[in-house]
Amino acid sequence: MFETAELGRTLDKARYERRVPALRTELLALQERAREARLPVHILINGVDGAGKGETVNLLHEWMDPRYLSAQAFGPCSDEERSRPAWWRYWRALAPKGRIGIYFGNWYTEPIVGRALRHLSREGFEAQLTRIASVERALVDDGALIIKLWFHLSKKAQKDAYRALLASKRTRWRVTKDDQRNQRRYDRFREVSERAVRETSTGYAPWSIIEAGDERYRNVAVGETIAAALRERLDHPPPARLSAEQRPPPTDGRTILDTVKLSAKVPARRYDKRLERLQGRLHAAFDELKRERRSVIAVFEGWDAAGKGGAVRRVTAALDARDYRVIPIAAPTDEERAQHYLWRFWRHLPGAGRMTVYDRSWYGRVLVERVESFAREDEWQRAYNEINDFEAQLVEHGTVLAKFWLHIDQTEQLRRFKERERTAFKKFKITEEDYRNRAKAGRYVHAVHDMIERTSTDLAPWHLVAATDKRFARLDVLEHLCARIEQAL
Amino acid sequence: MFETAELGRTLDKARYERRVPALRTELLALQERAREARLPVHILINGVDGAGKGETVNLLHEWMDPRYLSAQAFGPCSDEERSRPAWWRYWRALAPKGRIGIYFGNWYTEPIVGRALRHLSREGFEAQLTRIASVERALVDDGALIIKLWFHLSKKAQKDAYRALLASKRTRWRVTKDDQRNQRRYDRFREVSERAVRETSTGYAPWSIIEAGDERYRNVAVGETIAAALRERLDHPPPARLSAEQRPPPTDGRTILDTVKLSAKVPARRYDKRLERLQGRLHAAFDELKRERRSVIAVFEGWDAAGKGGAVRRVTAALDARDYRVIPIAAPTDEERAQHYLWRFWRHLPGAGRMTVYDRSWYGRVLVERVESFAREDEWQRAYNEINDFEAQLVEHGTVLAKFWLHIDQTEQLRRFKERERTAFKKFKITEEDYRNRAKAGRYVHAVHDMIERTSTDLAPWHLVAATDKRFARLDVLEHLCARIEQAL
Repeated sequence: MFETAELGRTLDKARYERRVPALRTELLALQERAREARLPVHILINGVDGAGKGETVNLLHEWMDPRYLSAQAFGPCSDEERSRPAWWRYWRALAPKGRIGIYFGNWYTEPIVGRALRHLSREGFEAQLTRIASVERALVDDGALIIKLWFHLSKKAQKDAYRALLASKRTRWRVTKDDQRNQRRYDRFREVSERAVRETSTGYAPWSIIEAGDERYRNVAVGETIAAALRERLDHPPPARLSAEQRPPPTDGRTILDTVKLSAKVPARRYDKRLERLQGRLHAAFDELKRERRSVIAVFEGWDAAGKGGAVRRVTAALDARDYRVIPIAAPTDEERAQHYLWRFWRHLPGAGRMTVYDRSWYGRVLVERVESFAREDEWQRAYNEINDFEAQLVEHGTVLAKFWLHIDQTEQLRRFKERERTAFKKFKITEEDYRNRAKAGRYVHAVHDMIERTSTDLAPWHLVAATDKRFARLDVLEHLCARIEQAL
Repeated sequence: MFETAELGRTLDKARYERRVPALRTELLALQERAREARLPVHILINGVDGAGKGETVNLLHEWMDPRYLSAQAFGPCSDEERSRPAWWRYWRALAPKGRIGIYFGNWYTEPIVGRALRHLSREGFEAQLTRIASVERALVDDGALIIKLWFHLSKKAQKDAYRALLASKRTRWRVTKDDQRNQRRYDRFREVSERAVRETSTGYAPWSIIEAGDERYRNVAVGETIAAALRERLDHPPPARLSAEQRPPPTDGRTILDTVKLSAKVPARRYDKRLERLQGRLHAAFDELKRERRSVIAVFEGWDAAGKGGAVRRVTAALDARDYRVIPIAAPTDEERAQHYLWRFWRHLPGAGRMTVYDRSWYGRVLVERVESFAREDEWQRAYNEINDFEAQLVEHGTVLAKFWLHIDQTEQLRRFKERERTAFKKFKITEEDYRNRAKAGRYVHAVHDMIERTSTDLAPWHLVAATDKRFARLDVLEHLCARIEQAL
């Protein structure tokens, strides 16, 4: 497929100088429109070494407004990056809405280099391409524009480029030992790259192949490709999908929550001893996991007043406060709002030997955001897949993931609301919103049912906790969390 | 001084249970008020091992609203942390306005442990305490409340505490080998700690010493100390300081900018070759610095249209785009606004082998914020010291710091504004604000003069660049940057 970029196209100086001013003007205007439209733009720069990728990034800084442009290059992983799922480093670097991020040495680099140098199996390579496609899909679905530029040089052109650089003392440094070694594997790199480009050239995020042999031609081709993609996206924004009807609830009215045996309880006299034993067990299990430099994520969802906070504290009490963080999910900050909705969860992922407890989580997308219509139907519908993919990445990395739904019935909830209102230091926990949510309980039940149906996977099953009896619920949470960690060891 | 916390104070169960509910109610109410007042609260937890610091942090999570509380513990440095100045890890962890951050294993830990174990000289220890005092001062000046709790146990009480923990299988893990080793050095730790506590117990951030032998007494003492500090600060906010008159300009009207020889120029025919040579030299120097795993910060300030952008691009063109980031300083995000003004510069500090170019910088505090009265006089006046201290930390870490003021006169500036307005793709650079700023040129000159007078230090001198001739300015910037790096090697 790369033959189309071996035509020896060039652009003479006179024509270049005639075209560039108009191109710059257009790029600037488009960049400004993208900013106003709060469009997140991700430009991927990949391709053959020696094809001028770095120079092009410099040039883009010159042609556009650098204040809203940010170049990111990914070298070897830092230990903070290594101790989290592979995509963490890319998520943390994503440009927010209204900005243009330029990424090189990006998520294509590792699979292509790995496969070309045979560090990566064919299956591993294919799996990474599939992952890439699904992440890019999620970003585009969320409104991002992804522009992927593949810089191509023929074998001979690469050789010539290196020779020219090596000829001068001033540019010799640009050709590294790795470059020279990889040059000898040109054919291998080409084959692997073709496969990667072909398989990830999707309708929503296509590749553009840039013939890179002639600097002027390359510059104009890059500028025009970016301008065309921006223009197309800004002139024809994706149609706002209509919010479809909510699906009717299951016909017999029964949901998965009806399977929870709400009467389960633990007698007070047995509680303290069992709690202590489970906390000791949790500590020991977590300690072993720490030695393996792995991490834990515990997700707490459930009805208001179901006892999430109390259960979380029984978990954290078993741990050294150095090792965990509780992330209570409230309204996003503006930096979070300027990103894909999963971004604010990615940023808090635990490093090696740490636990993050999410008090409410990404499941808000398919619960409150669905019920309150904060998310459109197409948004929350596709969230199930996005979430499964996200969680698969956590588990593949070796993170232990435990997800709890704390269940109580409506009568018990009301009783607790009233009780809280009577207790001065718990009053702050009850607001009018809690009562409003109560009125929507039917819709929430439906959303919970769908959530469990679609996101209780082998890798990341939901654990439903009967929470009428707080003692039972706390012990059950601890027991399940211990079991999840012990299984993983 | 710790004898006052060896009185064997205890609290019986009945009194504890009578006092706690009211204390929790008050803590919650105060936390809510702090949130409304957007007060940043930093609670430091330090003291003797085995004194229940971790348990207390858990307890605070139970007593207060955990959604606006965040506990931070600092273990060994990650490589991202190690490759930046020591305080970077603390700045990145600081709680924003309206939240309470609880820090243990914090900035006191390293100097105290280091000195007690003799890894740190007396001078190094003193220097760290001085640094701590000045950072805490800056945070408090910016409106933060710092509550410092020192948990004390007598030698015997520590021994008893360890013995009790070791007696049970379930709690044995709490006593580590390090704890046991440090226990043998109790006296040494005590002496060093006393010194640290005494020297950093300032009016703006005093220590409270908590007798920690009895759990109930300790819990109530911690709760009441925090409540008292919050109450005091919320009931008596520091008086809003009046903005004093701007100082009159130097009497003869001459400023440091008058020393810049604006007529300096480089003939066009010599430019290309000299540019290339300097870029090669910069590349080589930076490469050597990279090998030493050090970093560079280049700060560009100057008049609008003085050519900062063009100079920056001549610098970055000499580097591999992987190695640098340009951070254009515009309006802060809300996460940035919720922090001390230096926070948003700390977050972008380069790691080992990287360069960060700040296109405008922290000097905005003493330039635009001063001239436009965005900062009160006391705020920008103290900023000189805060900035010098910040930069000293960079340089001590081994970062090469180069600061440029690009100077042109008013006539040249007007000429450039007009020229930009005629060039379509540069039009975006000129806004009404630029003309408004021009009208305030006199006040800016004065601010620049003061800035250079107070922040051009041996460690971090300003370099004034005659920028009438763009070629001269670009070469001069490159030359100076090369020299700075070469000197540091």
